[in-house]
Amino acid sequence: MATNEDGSVTRKEHHGYIGVSAVIVVMRHGCTEEETEGVRNHIETIRGLQAHISPGVERTVIGVLGEIYPELQNEMEQLPGVLEVVRISKPYKLAGKEMHPEPTLVKVGDVTIGGDEVVIMAGPCSVEDEKQIIDTAITARNAGARILRGGAFKPRSSPYNFRGLGVEGLRLLAKARNESGLPVITEVMTAEDVPLVEEYADILQVGARNVQNFILLDAVGKCHKPVLLKRGFATSYEEWLLSAEYVLAGGNDQVILCERGIRTVETYTRNTLDLGAIPVIKRLSHLPIVADPSHGTGKWHLVAPMALAAVAAGADGLLIEVHPNPDRALSDGAQSLTFENFNKLMNGVRSVGQAVNRPISSGVQ
Amino acid sequence: MATNEDGSVTRKEHHGYIGVSAVIVVMRHGCTEEETEGVRNHIETIRGLQAHISPGVERTVIGVLGEIYPELQNEMEQLPGVLEVVRISKPYKLAGKEMHPEPTLVKVGDVTIGGDEVVIMAGPCSVEDEKQIIDTAITARNAGARILRGGAFKPRSSPYNFRGLGVEGLRLLAKARNESGLPVITEVMTAEDVPLVEEYADILQVGARNVQNFILLDAVGKCHKPVLLKRGFATSYEEWLLSAEYVLAGGNDQVILCERGIRTVETYTRNTLDLGAIPVIKRLSHLPIVADPSHGTGKWHLVAPMALAAVAAGADGLLIEVHPNPDRALSDGAQSLTFENFNKLMNGVRSVGQAVNRPISSGVQ
Amino acid sequence: MATNEDGSVTRKEHHGYIGVSAVIVVMRHGCTEEETEGVRNHIETIRGLQAHISPGVERTVIGVLGEIYPELQNEMEQLPGVLEVVRISKPYKLAGKEMHPEPTLVKVGDVTIGGDEVVIMAGPCSVEDEKQIIDTAITARNAGARILRGGAFKPRSSPYNFRGLGVEGLRLLAKARNESGLPVITEVMTAEDVPLVEEYADILQVGARNVQNFILLDAVGKCHKPVLLKRGFATSYEEWLLSAEYVLAGGNDQVILCERGIRTVETYTRNTLDLGAIPVIKRLSHLPIVADPSHGTGKWHLVAPMALAAVAAGADGLLIEVHPNPDRALSDGAQSLTFENFNKLMNGVRSVGQAVNRPISSGVQ
Amino acid sequence: MATNEDGSVTRKEHHGYIGVSAVIVVMRHGCTEEETEGVRNHIETIRGLQAHISPGVERTVIGVLGEIYPELQNEMEQLPGVLEVVRISKPYKLAGKEMHPEPTLVKVGDVTIGGDEVVIMAGPCSVEDEKQIIDTAITARNAGARILRGGAFKPRSSPYNFRGLGVEGLRLLAKARNESGLPVITEVMTAEDVPLVEEYADILQVGARNVQNFILLDAVGKCHKPVLLKRGFATSYEEWLLSAEYVLAGGNDQVILCERGIRTVETYTRNTLDLGAIPVIKRLSHLPIVADPSHGTGKWHLVAPMALAAVAAGADGLLIEVHPNPDRALSDGAQSLTFENFNKLMNGVRSVGQAVNRPISSGVQ
Repeated sequence: MATNEDGSVTRKEHHGYIGVSAVIVVMRHGCTEEETEGVRNHIETIRGLQAHISPGVERTVIGVLGEIYPELQNEMEQLPGVLEVVRISKPYKLAGKEMHPEPTLVKVGDVTIGGDEVVIMAGPCSVEDEKQIIDTAITARNAGARILRGGAFKPRSSPYNFRGLGVEGLRLLAKARNESGLPVITEVMTAEDVPLVEEYADILQVGARNVQNFILLDAVGKCHKPVLLKRGFATSYEEWLLSAEYVLAGGNDQVILCERGIRTVETYTRNTLDLGAIPVIKRLSHLPIVADPSHGTGKWHLVAPMALAAVAAGADGLLIEVHPNPDRALSDGAQSLTFENFNKLMNGVRSVGQAVNRPISSGVQ
Repeated sequence: MATNEDGSVTRKEHHGYIGVSAVIVVMRHGCTEEETEGVRNHIETIRGLQAHISPGVERTVIGVLGEIYPELQNEMEQLPGVLEVVRISKPYKLAGKEMHPEPTLVKVGDVTIGGDEVVIMAGPCSVEDEKQIIDTAITARNAGARILRGGAFKPRSSPYNFRGLGVEGLRLLAKARNESGLPVITEVMTAEDVPLVEEYADILQVGARNVQNFILLDAVGKCHKPVLLKRGFATSYEEWLLSAEYVLAGGNDQVILCERGIRTVETYTRNTLDLGAIPVIKRLSHLPIVADPSHGTGKWHLVAPMALAAVAAGADGLLIEVHPNPDRALSDGAQSLTFENFNKLMNGVRSVGQAVNRPISSGVQ
Repeated sequence: MATNEDGSVTRKEHHGYIGVSAVIVVMRHGCTEEETEGVRNHIETIRGLQAHISPGVERTVIGVLGEIYPELQNEMEQLPGVLEVVRISKPYKLAGKEMHPEPTLVKVGDVTIGGDEVVIMAGPCSVEDEKQIIDTAITARNAGARILRGGAFKPRSSPYNFRGLGVEGLRLLAKARNESGLPVITEVMTAEDVPLVEEYADILQVGARNVQNFILLDAVGKCHKPVLLKRGFATSYEEWLLSAEYVLAGGNDQVILCERGIRTVETYTRNTLDLGAIPVIKRLSHLPIVADPSHGTGKWHLVAPMALAAVAAGADGLLIEVHPNPDRALSDGAQSLTFENFNKLMNGVRSVGQAVNRPISSGVQ
Repeated sequence: MATNEDGSVTRKEHHGYIGVSAVIVVMRHGCTEEETEGVRNHIETIRGLQAHISPGVERTVIGVLGEIYPELQNEMEQLPGVLEVVRISKPYKLAGKEMHPEPTLVKVGDVTIGGDEVVIMAGPCSVEDEKQIIDTAITARNAGARILRGGAFKPRSSPYNFRGLGVEGLRLLAKARNESGLPVITEVMTAEDVPLVEEYADILQVGARNVQNFILLDAVGKCHKPVLLKRGFATSYEEWLLSAEYVLAGGNDQVILCERGIRTVETYTRNTLDLGAIPVIKRLSHLPIVADPSHGTGKWHLVAPMALAAVAAGADGLLIEVHPNPDRALSDGAQSLTFENFNKLMNGVRSVGQAVNRPISSGVQ
C-alpha cells in the first residue's frame, strides 16, 4: 500500500475515483487560528486535497476540493473547532443523472424496460414443479406479461422454510421460457452462482437482503445480463444508487431498480411500499425503476390497488406474484394472485397506463 | 372510584365498553399448576373477566372473555408462567367494519366524500391575505376543486416560523367561501378553539401532530361539523383508527381520515407517503380516506405523480397545496403548486379517476 | 400584515428572530446565468436577505446571510439551477450550547436537576386513590427518590382506557407531597389546564404525544414552574430542541428533557429507548436530560438494566414507574416496579452512579 | 420433490422441522360453516396438519398443531371467513431459551464470552499496515482488551471507498496475534472465503449487511470457529435469532450476538444503538450478546458513554474501534478512539463492571 513521504495515504490509489464532489467545513463561532490551521492541515497534508479558506464575520468557512470520498464528511466533523461539515454533491456518479441525462433502456429480447411502455413481469414466488411454472408462464403471457419471474434460489428468514429447487428450478425456468416465449428473471444469491444463473436467466435479480452484499454486486457487475436490484428493508435512495454504482462501475450498464417496500413502524403490511421512490429515482438517476407490490404489501388483496398506483406514479414496470393455486404455494402464497385475479389486474393496469400515456407493453406489433 | 369487595377494580365503570374482543394466554411448556392458577386468578378475581382453561399436551392455553381493554395483553405477559398473550380482535369498535359494513358518506354542502366520486380539496398552506386566498379559491374551483383548504392556525416546528393569521385568517376563508362557493376546511389546534373554528369552517382538520391530542379529539367529537383526521408521523393504522374512535365515541360520525406520510429512514422526501394505507383502511374501516401528497412528499415536483397514484389506489379525495406564487409563500412554498401546475394535475387526476371508475367530483349536474 | 413595496414579505415582522445561521446554495454544474440571477433575486428581492455569489470552476456556490428561517432550505431547493441547499447552523438558539455553554440547573425545592447528582423521580403511572399514592410516595422517598411522579390527566390511545382522576388526582398528589415531603411532577395535557396544574404541581410534564402541541408549549413557556418535556415517538433531536425553544422563548428557562423511547422497526419492546440521546443532548444543549426506562421499554423486567445504563450514559435523572401492586394497576401495570424491585433498582443505581462519579441525590445533608 | 396423493405437498420433506409451535385461527363473527370447513380442509388436507375446532358463542376458534412453518400465519389470514391468525410460539428453536435454559459459553483460547466476565474486543476498523495493527494490538492488550478486532475484507456502501487489504490483512492479523497474544476476530463477507478466513481468525464476524445472507450463514454454520453475528440495520430480535438459528442448525453452537445499532428516524448518529436488545436477548436466548458502540453511534465522543451504558445493561462484551491516529484512518476514523481515549474508556468500563458485578476479563490469573 502506497503512503506519501509524510506518512499520509492518498486514497486515490485505492479506487481511482475522479470526484466532482466537494465538501464545505463550517468552523465554530470564535474558533482559534490553530483550529482553522488544523483543519487546513488535515485537508491538505494528511488527505492531499485542496482547502479554500473564507474567513467571515460570523464564521470561517472552508471549501474542500479534490477527490472526495464519502466518509470525509464524518471524519472532519470530529476535528477541533469544526461546527458542521456539509457535502455538496452526490457520492454516486455513474448512477446519477448529471453525467448521463438520457434514460437508460434495458433490452431483454424484444422487450425494452425504461422506454415509453410499462413492462409486466409475473410468475410464482418459487418454481415448484414443471406443470406449475409452465402453466403460469403461458397464462401470464396470455394475460399480457412480457417477462416470467420465478425463484430457484430463495432467501428465507427461517432455515426451516422451503428454500427453492436450486439448479432444477433454473432448468424448469428455461423450459418455461421455451414453451411461453417469455424471457426469465430469477434471483442469484451469491457471487459463486452468478455464472450458473447467467447461463439460464435473461435478467439476474439481486434481492432486498443482498442490496449491500458488495461481493455479489461486484460479480453481477461483471456479468453480461441485465441486473434487477431490489431496494433493501432500510436502504436510503442514496445507498441504493451507490449499490447500483457497484454494478455500473463493474462494467454492466444494464441495471433496473426495483422498489419493494421498506420497513417502517407499520406492521399490518409486510412492508411499506414507498411509491415516492419512483418519481424520486426518475429525478436522480437515468436507470429504469419498477415496483413489486406483492412483496411491498404481503397481502394479495392489496396487490392490485398498489400495482395501479405504481403505474400512475410512473413505474417502468411491475413485478407480480402469480400462482395457479396460492393456497398450496410453497412460499408467499398469501401475496400471490390467482390467474383470475391477475387477469383483472392486467385490465386495470392497462386502463391506468393509458390514462398516464404509458401503454402496457404487449409484444404485439 | 368504584372498587369491588376484594379490592379489585372493574374497569367497565370507567368506560362502559361492551367489547367483543378476547385474548388468548399461552402458558410456557412445563409451567406449574400454581402459575396457571395465578393467571386464572388474575383474570377472574382481579379483573372480573372469564377464563377458559384448555390443558394441552404441549402447552396450556387460556382464553379470556369479557370486556377486554387494550393493555390487558401487555399486563398478562408479565405474569409467571406466561409465554405469550395474543389479542384476537381489534381494540376499536365504532371505527371498524365489523359492526358497520357500509361506507360512511361525509356530506359538506352538495359535496359527498366517501362515495363514488373523488373530491379534490385545494388551497394554500396558510391564508396570507385577502387577494391570495380569494384568487386561489376561484382558480381552484375553476380547475375542479370542490373544497378550499387554507391554514389560519399553523403548527410550526420552530417558534420562529410564521404561525398563521389566526381569527383574521378564518374571516378571510369565510370571505373566500362566499366568493367561490367552495366549502372550507381548516385546522384547529386546540380544544378551546373548536367553537370558534366551527363557526367559520365547514370541515375541521386535526393535524398530524395532534393525532393523539385526546383533549382535542374529545372536543371535535362533540362538534357538529365533519372532522378530517390526519395520520401522525409514526401512527399505526390501529392507533389512527383508535383516534377516530375518540371522535366517533364523542358522537360525531362524520370523520374523514387523511394519509399524509409517515417518517421513515428515508430523509430525501419530507415524509414517506404510505399509499398502502388507502386499501388497508378501506378494508378495516367504513370511514372515507383521502391523501395529502403535498405534505406527504414536501416537494412540488413529486405532488402530481403521487396524487395520480393515490387516486389509482382508491383514495376518496386529495388535499393539494396551491399558491399563486409559491416562491413567496409564507409557509410550505416548496411543496405548493402554481395555478398552472394545479391545472395540469387536475387533468391527470381526471384521466386516472376515469381509468379506475372513480369520476372526479365536478359539481356540475 | 406588512409587505414590502415590491410585494415581498419580510419574515422578521412575524417573529423577530435574529438568526446567526446561514445557508449555502450550490448551483448545478453548467447552470445558466439566468438561473444564478434568479436565485440571487429570490434571496435578495423576495426574501430581503443577502447573497454572496462565488463562481467556481466546477460549480457556483451562493452564501445566504441574514435572518434565515428553517424552511428556506427546502424552498430554495426548488429553484431552477439549484443542485443542493445546505444549512450551516442549528435552527434553535436559546436551547443550544453556542450561546449558553454552562449547564442549566433546574431547582425544585432543595433538589437540583442538571448538577453533579442524579435525581430519581418515582411513582405510579396514574394516581388511583389516596392510599396508593401516599404509600408509594413514602416508600419511594425512603428508597431514595427525590421527586414523586403520578398522572392525574392521562393520555390513552384508546377512549376505552382509564383516563385519570383529573382534579381529584391533583389534590391527592398535593396530599402525598405533604405526607412525604417530595415535590411532585405530573402531566398537563392542554393549555387550558396549565394554571390548574401549576397550582398543584412542582414540575409540569409535557408528554410524548404533545411534544409538538405548540399551543401547550407556548402555555408552559409562560408558567412559573419547571417543565419536563418528553421526546415524541418520532421526534428528532433537532425538533425536540426546537420544542424546548418554544418554552424558552416564552420566558421559562427551567426546562428538563426526558428521553422515553422512540418507535422503531422493533416491536418487542413498547419503544426503543435511545440512550444515545443523553450524550448527544449534553453536547448540543445546556438543558438537563433524564431517562424514562419504564415507558422506554414497557416491560418491568427491562426497567432496571436500562435504568443502570441510563445513569452510566450520563443521565441527570430517572423517571421510574412504581406501584404497590402492579397487577392491579389501572394503567401501565406491565411496566411498573413493585416496592421491592424499586429498592433493588435504587441499590443498583447507587453503585453505577458512584462508578461514573455521579452520586445519587439523597436529600441527606 | 414429494407430493401427497391428493396433490398437496407436505412441507416436512423440505426441512425436517419438528416444531413445538402452534397457531390459532380466529374466524369472523358470523362466518359460514363452509368457511370453517374450508379452513379445516386447508389445514388438514392441503397442509397435513391437525385442526382443533372450538365453536364459541362469539367466534369460532381453530387451533392448528403439527409442524408449523413461519409463513403459515400469513397464508391462512387470506382464507375466506378468517379474522385473524395468531402464532403462539417462537419460530426459532435452537436459539431460544425454552430448550436450552443455561447460558452458552463461547471459548476462544483462555477467554470465555458469556460467563461472568465482560470481554473487551478492540482494534482498528481496517487493518492498514503491519505497524498499525501490531501497535494497536499491543496497546489494546496492555489497556485490558482480550481480543483483537480488525477488518481485512470491508463492506463499504460506496465502491470508491477503501475495501480492505484482503488476504494480506489476514496475514497481518495473524502476525499481530503472535506479537500480542490476543486472539483475532475479523469479518468474512462471502461463503467462498470462509475456509480462508477460518484459517487465520479465531472468531468469524458476520456483518450487519449480511445478517440475512443465508448462504454465508449456512457456511459459517459448518465452520469450526465461533461466529459473531451482528444485527442488521432493520432486523427484529426474532429475525436476528432466526439468523443465529441458521448457524446453530448448521452444527456450530458457538454463536455470539452483537448489537450495533439500528436505523431509525434519528440521523444525527450513524445508527441508534438499541441497548434494550441486551436484556431482551438475555431473556429470549442463551447466546451471549456484546455491543459495538463505535458503529452504534458513529462518533468517537459518544463511544465511551455508550460503552459504559452497555456494560451497565448487562453486555457480555464490547467491540471498540481503536486507531493509533484516527485522523489518518482509511475507514471509520470518526468513530475510532485514540490510544489515550481507549485507556480512559477501559478505566470507566472497569468501574461500571464492578458496580454491576461483572468484572472486566483481564487475563491475569
